[in-house]
Amino acid sequence: MQIGMIGLGRMGGNMVRRLKAGGHTVVGFDVNPESARDVDGLEALVAALDAPRIVWVMVPAGKPTESTIDALKALLEPGDVVIDGGNSKYTEDRNHAASLAERGIRFLDCGVSGGVWGAERGYALMLGGDRETFEYVRPLLETLKPEGEHGLVLAGPVGGGHFAKMVHNGIEYGMMQAFGEGFATMMKSEYIDNPAETMDSWREGSVVASWLLDLFDNATEHDPELADVPAVANESGEAKWMIEAALELGVPTPATAAALWQRQTSRGGADDILRVVTAMRAQFGGHVTKVDEIATH
Amino acid sequence: MQIGMIGLGRMGGNMVRRLKAGGHTVVGFDVNPESARDVDGLEALVAALDAPRIVWVMVPAGKPTESTIDALKALLEPGDVVIDGGNSKYTEDRNHAASLAERGIRFLDCGVSGGVWGAERGYALMLGGDRETFEYVRPLLETLKPEGEHGLVLAGPVGGGHFAKMVHNGIEYGMMQAFGEGFATMMKSEYIDNPAETMDSWREGSVVASWLLDLFDNATEHDPELADVPAVANESGEAKWMIEAALELGVPTPATAAALWQRQTSRGGADDILRVVTAMRAQFGGHVTKVDEIATH
Amino acid sequence: MQIGMIGLGRMGGNMVRRLKAGGHTVVGFDVNPESARDVDGLEALVAALDAPRIVWVMVPAGKPTESTIDALKALLEPGDVVIDGGNSKYTEDRNHAASLAERGIRFLDCGVSGGVWGAERGYALMLGGDRETFEYVRPLLETLKPEGEHGLVLAGPVGGGHFAKMVHNGIEYGMMQAFGEGFATMMKSEYIDNPAETMDSWREGSVVASWLLDLFDNATEHDPELADVPAVANESGEAKWMIEAALELGVPTPATAAALWQRQTSRGGADDILRVVTAMRAQFGGHVTKVDEIATH
Amino acid sequence: MQIGMIGLGRMGGNMVRRLKAGGHTVVGFDVNPESARDVDGLEALVAALDAPRIVWVMVPAGKPTESTIDALKALLEPGDVVIDGGNSKYTEDRNHAASLAERGIRFLDCGVSGGVWGAERGYALMLGGDRETFEYVRPLLETLKPEGEHGLVLAGPVGGGHFAKMVHNGIEYGMMQAFGEGFATMMKSEYIDNPAETMDSWREGSVVASWLLDLFDNATEHDPELADVPAVANESGEAKWMIEAALELGVPTPATAAALWQRQTSRGGADDILRVVTAMRAQFGGHVTKVDEIATH
Repeated sequence: MQIGMIGLGRMGGNMVRRLKAGGHTVVGFDVNPESARDVDGLEALVAALDAPRIVWVMVPAGKPTESTIDALKALLEPGDVVIDGGNSKYTEDRNHAASLAERGIRFLDCGVSGGVWGAERGYALMLGGDRETFEYVRPLLETLKPEGEHGLVLAGPVGGGHFAKMVHNGIEYGMMQAFGEGFATMMKSEYIDNPAETMDSWREGSVVASWLLDLFDNATEHDPELADVPAVANESGEAKWMIEAALELGVPTPATAAALWQRQTSRGGADDILRVVTAMRAQFGGHVTKVDEIATH
Repeated sequence: MQIGMIGLGRMGGNMVRRLKAGGHTVVGFDVNPESARDVDGLEALVAALDAPRIVWVMVPAGKPTESTIDALKALLEPGDVVIDGGNSKYTEDRNHAASLAERGIRFLDCGVSGGVWGAERGYALMLGGDRETFEYVRPLLETLKPEGEHGLVLAGPVGGGHFAKMVHNGIEYGMMQAFGEGFATMMKSEYIDNPAETMDSWREGSVVASWLLDLFDNATEHDPELADVPAVANESGEAKWMIEAALELGVPTPATAAALWQRQTSRGGADDILRVVTAMRAQFGGHVTKVDEIATH
Repeated sequence: MQIGMIGLGRMGGNMVRRLKAGGHTVVGFDVNPESARDVDGLEALVAALDAPRIVWVMVPAGKPTESTIDALKALLEPGDVVIDGGNSKYTEDRNHAASLAERGIRFLDCGVSGGVWGAERGYALMLGGDRETFEYVRPLLETLKPEGEHGLVLAGPVGGGHFAKMVHNGIEYGMMQAFGEGFATMMKSEYIDNPAETMDSWREGSVVASWLLDLFDNATEHDPELADVPAVANESGEAKWMIEAALELGVPTPATAAALWQRQTSRGGADDILRVVTAMRAQFGGHVTKVDEIATH
Repeated sequence: MQIGMIGLGRMGGNMVRRLKAGGHTVVGFDVNPESARDVDGLEALVAALDAPRIVWVMVPAGKPTESTIDALKALLEPGDVVIDGGNSKYTEDRNHAASLAERGIRFLDCGVSGGVWGAERGYALMLGGDRETFEYVRPLLETLKPEGEHGLVLAGPVGGGHFAKMVHNGIEYGMMQAFGEGFATMMKSEYIDNPAETMDSWREGSVVASWLLDLFDNATEHDPELADVPAVANESGEAKWMIEAALELGVPTPATAAALWQRQTSRGGADDILRVVTAMRAQFGGHVTKVDEIATH
């Protein structure tokens, strides 16, 4: 099958390789002239494909995705399909779909999981859109997904793919937090000599066996106490969006939020909270004013 | 190898079968005369084994384990080994070990994961005790564990096996809560048509792939919205113990606790909290006194 | 001073009485013809006031506030002032201010705390807007606020009043949750004979002395165990907005969110989470299928 | 009335002054010879009092309280009363009471709130023990407590005083966290120009008016952004005990725990959790190995 791929970075580039290995014809474009791009512009990309075309947008969310979709709207023809495989927020998909629909262009949003391992393991794909368009592009999805019976779903209407990916990532936050809490408890306890080896043992036969645990084993192979890993973590947006969506839906998400807040705290997010606590304690506990005293009061 | 197994319930019974299939000689005892017991008392069990004996205690934690270990203390000889494979709290192991040591009897505590699947998949085993005793009983452990390279660890000194199992179960709580939050968010959202199918798709190629997700697929196969499952969950003790241990160690466990509290709340644990909130709101919001009004104020 | 008050419900009506008692001239309007309204329409209200007019909008947030501000935009003159004293979300204020500014009409947003007690105690007022407009309407604010030196602030630019009120209410959620957790713990403990009397004792000399605690004493006077109060609580929106705002700002709000989630859970928000937990436990713990067994497993 | 006071530190010393000002006769002892002690040993203290004696123990919890009560057990006579006014854990009180009862000595445990302000404002007192002993010592309690009708309670049987104080402090944790979350959100928002002034305005007429808010005003008077206060806070034990007690009772305490965990995190408690999260992210996100890259990935 023919496909145009816009964005040849780490993710897009690997996906192109997997698609080609699956026998598909890929026309790749990237704004970076030093990339392995096949054409030097969107016009050329569109010209190189037969209608009804399939164009996969794999560029950063926000402005880059926005302007790419705007450009494609002008270049593509009715019946063509645009797939947004980037990390767009699910609320943006309906705008993109509506805009493209003005010219009869079809739209699918696709959440992609798998990271750098996807090239080899295959990518878990979650789609949003209508069934007919999904079936039209299915041969490409079947190549990108893992070989087994799982890894591909039409989750819902437009926006559903990114919504599913957002929830997936929120769950991922909670799972990593759970493993982290367990590891940290064992690290501090005199009852456990080797926390990493203990977690490693759970990779088979235990209820917590999981791919994340397999990855953890990789990470601790040469650094069992994670001494070289900084005690700070960034966030990628999805957990925040999921918590917001759940708040609106009336669904509590304490574990997901615990994970996000731990990360925000590691970057100073709770500093002002602690200042209030310590300032109040200094007031009622005795007029402590020196910083050292306050902290240890 | 020879082993005496005390407690032939669901867990103990399955373990006996796996041990026998592995070529070991098992002498089983259970207080229930209708069980498949080989002997009708602990004295007979001890008499049937050659010294240095290995006796695996697989009975409920608390009183039953306590009295079994007391009885074995009187019957066994120096050099014999007692393994507590039940769900004892890690703090009890040191008492058991010290008591048995008075007569030269060795002790190992063993956390066992795997549930009803263990008979077939093998059991993940976490041991606490000294290396020499661990190596002595290792042939039995190798039979009980899964076939691969994982699933068995000497986690630390006496108590370490149950401590590791406790942390394992705490992590399990957090993971299930994470999956639950994701599923609940998708159930309420108009963006997702089929939450169960979406989660099912993550079983391959995604970051959250895990045995729990595989089990979830079983659970939703005939009831994709879990309509027949009650919105209430019990607790088994380990998460509570882990949170307590972590509190003492100064390690925050918000995700683990979120999971436990959600369950406690489902059984009415937060009712008095809500009464306070609603009573205060009624006070400052206007003298609402009827129950219906309070609730919807 | 002259003021037009739109909305003569419980809050607006009480504020009119307090303003009149303070010597101000109030022209009141309400869509309800059976209210104590002075005029029967906005046109008449505007006509009854001298320029530059001050009009206080005290109607429900959303559509009613929206349409009232739109109508005032057409009726008022440059230099007049509109104050939105309702529960609008802070993000709406900028739109309202910008819209009114097109006709030279000034805007202030005002968060109001005090509930039904405000009529007597005075209202805590938080304003958003420019200093000059704030000073122009200050005589009215001084009458509405409590008699002491506190209870009035220009918190920030347009939106700041409702933002401050939102944070105020979020704090209120957290405080009520804290009291609730303490009361619930005492209710269940054999160490405390009389939780309500114990909390009552803290009203003087203790660190937790507060107006909420005073209200709690009222609530428990004739029902010390809150037996007649339902274990369910509603939410009013502000805590949710505050958590969303804080998420964007990278500030963790676990106590505020705990309070909100407890309420959402009391209305069934966590049911699907618990179904997942119980369904997974039934899978790995043994093929339990009956509802009763699952719940008590 | 006569009373012996053991421990003349900041709390005990202030209480002696308040008792003397109330017309009571106080015999004070402290291990520190440079204190304002009246006698140089417990024997002398006991000798200086008429039976049935009242001895108030106001020394650090744990060993010091333990050994003081043991010494008093040997020195006092049947009918005498020992009051433990320190910060003992409620679980220790029953042991102390039982030990003293062997010699017919009566026991009360007393939680004391008020900090350095108590000397002037009076102390909120929570007692555990029997009604008769409580009534016997009431004249002293009436002097120590604030002047109004609140501030004194017999909360329950032995242990109830410290249990009530523990819950009181847990609530205090939650309230401070709630204020902290609000302040931190306002500090980061462009909508609020002056968070401290805004919080100050809530001291009258608002739902969150409280003594803690009054103290906050003191704290921010010369440092409105709390720039000189460290973003770290210690814990005093009571919140931890309350959470443990509630866990056992099946009562969720998410707000109290959020407050404690924020403090533990500020002292590094979550560092290992974050290392796990960041190590896992580095694994699935691409083999990032440099510290800087990991942190900002």
